[in-house]
Amino acid sequence: MQNIVVLTGGVGGARFLEGMRAAHPDTQITAIVNTADDLWVFGVRVCPDLDSVMYTLGGGIDPERRWGRQDETWNARGELERYGEPEAWFGLGDRDLATHLVRSDRLRRGATLSQVTDELCERWRPGIRLVPMTDDEVATRLVVDTPEGESDVHFQEYWIRYRAQVPIRSLRYEGIESAAPAPGVIEAVEGADVIVVAPSNPIVSIAPILAVPGMRELLRTAAAPVVGVSPIIAGGHVRGMADQLLGGLGLEVSAAGVAEFHGARSGGGVLDGWLVDTADAGTVSRIESAGIAARAVPLYMSDDDTTRALAEDALELARPLAGER
Amino acid sequence: MQNIVVLTGGVGGARFLEGMRAAHPDTQITAIVNTADDLWVFGVRVCPDLDSVMYTLGGGIDPERRWGRQDETWNARGELERYGEPEAWFGLGDRDLATHLVRSDRLRRGATLSQVTDELCERWRPGIRLVPMTDDEVATRLVVDTPEGESDVHFQEYWIRYRAQVPIRSLRYEGIESAAPAPGVIEAVEGADVIVVAPSNPIVSIAPILAVPGMRELLRTAAAPVVGVSPIIAGGHVRGMADQLLGGLGLEVSAAGVAEFHGARSGGGVLDGWLVDTADAGTVSRIESAGIAARAVPLYMSDDDTTRALAEDALELARPLAGER
Repeated sequence: MQNIVVLTGGVGGARFLEGMRAAHPDTQITAIVNTADDLWVFGVRVCPDLDSVMYTLGGGIDPERRWGRQDETWNARGELERYGEPEAWFGLGDRDLATHLVRSDRLRRGATLSQVTDELCERWRPGIRLVPMTDDEVATRLVVDTPEGESDVHFQEYWIRYRAQVPIRSLRYEGIESAAPAPGVIEAVEGADVIVVAPSNPIVSIAPILAVPGMRELLRTAAAPVVGVSPIIAGGHVRGMADQLLGGLGLEVSAAGVAEFHGARSGGGVLDGWLVDTADAGTVSRIESAGIAARAVPLYMSDDDTTRALAEDALELARPLAGER
Repeated sequence: MQNIVVLTGGVGGARFLEGMRAAHPDTQITAIVNTADDLWVFGVRVCPDLDSVMYTLGGGIDPERRWGRQDETWNARGELERYGEPEAWFGLGDRDLATHLVRSDRLRRGATLSQVTDELCERWRPGIRLVPMTDDEVATRLVVDTPEGESDVHFQEYWIRYRAQVPIRSLRYEGIESAAPAPGVIEAVEGADVIVVAPSNPIVSIAPILAVPGMRELLRTAAAPVVGVSPIIAGGHVRGMADQLLGGLGLEVSAAGVAEFHGARSGGGVLDGWLVDTADAGTVSRIESAGIAARAVPLYMSDDDTTRALAEDALELARPLAGER
């Protein structure tokens, strides 16, 4: 095994990457990270998923919240509220802010997001190569029914300000049509021995990566098998509010439902294999009948050992599939 | 007395304005504030003098440092250092940062500095109208001899990073030729009953205001008398490192020297009157022989009463001069 590629969002994906790094410390692991959650707020560019992955792998993440920085303070944000800033709902910590300031400054001077990510990683040394899905600006936006009426909001606003508690009318990835895979994405996928879809939100983390023009075709034609890990266990998301989001869009909130959403590679989708939790062992046959090899293993990443074991299980599932192709 | 106009820099000027506000709570006081110290740092626009005045008058200044915010934390700055940012010498507090974020965001959306200043003052309610000297970007820059060789640095870098301890070869106000007085500046000066030069640094606070094209002529032809307060007492600056700066530029570091630097209005300068400290009473005759009415009074703004008394002394000095014109 020389090259592992992981498609990932933030929290769950970051933890999964820790397991993969622990399992294969000497292998080149490339994470292709969702950037459709990114946003300009208070004039700085925030990349929630890239930062969650970078801070987690670099040892700077807050271990309780699982986003943002450890030993964080919130003084800048408190002052922004006192200035009556309408965007003060966004959780911008003082330490975290430094990352956004450096990033935004570089972007304004003409650097690409991939270049800035490389630069930030010189400090954090995540041990995994982090590549944004695209250097172009993409924004997941939703039309929702708020108490004040229908509103067109950024995903972060839906997620944080409305806590995923308002009905969704529609969702789109703004800017995706004109986005191109970031430098390194195509090479990583083409050179991969295995491609893993991390247990990240299917709609707002994985789907935007797949929606970058060329990405689905790239995955369909890749030599390596594509295996994924269900972010849903026993009908619920392990952390966060993904259930509301999936349910709100009319998708089935289940391990099998997400597998079918991504689809079998043989049927025009992207998956060769799918891991579900032992609690969902009963859905393995349903998933396999959709043309996706499935296996039930413990999915809870409750400590370093189980997280590492999960990464191994994903690679284990991929091994025979690699032979098939 | 209907309209008082004060030309001012940061620390000393801010304190002086507090005295003026206390002395004349019902009078329209307009502060024309130096902006040549302003700089873009980490992608945010910092206005040291405007902020010192705003925070001081608004009750948010750190009472010990006399710049930046009370109860400040420095976590963003610490992280910027860890990212190896070359500009991490700049003292950017977390609370202070919020002001710069709001300002920078507005400026990028097309607002002028005067508009943003008005907006920030809606929160701080300084009780004095704060007007930047210009909405255009001006930068006081110096060519200095650093331990690493000759270097062209922003004033803030000279002041903070080099602590005013490196020899100066030259100083200039970059961008001043194409700067115009901000909206309100001309009207304020023309409508003033008295114009006061605050005890601010003559070279880096007052001189840049006077160097905005049209300003000297505006002051020379104003109906109101122009009186100033010496920032130098007994050959030294009350606070900070202005002596180094003045001495480094070959100027005489004395109350009379600064008066002569600004010059008598009758002789092409800007001053009708000048207050020196009682410790400098011996120089009154020298200043008067230069065509500037002078008086020795206590200049130390050691508490609210002495600060208020100093403001009254400045207006007192101006009274007979108004009659003369």
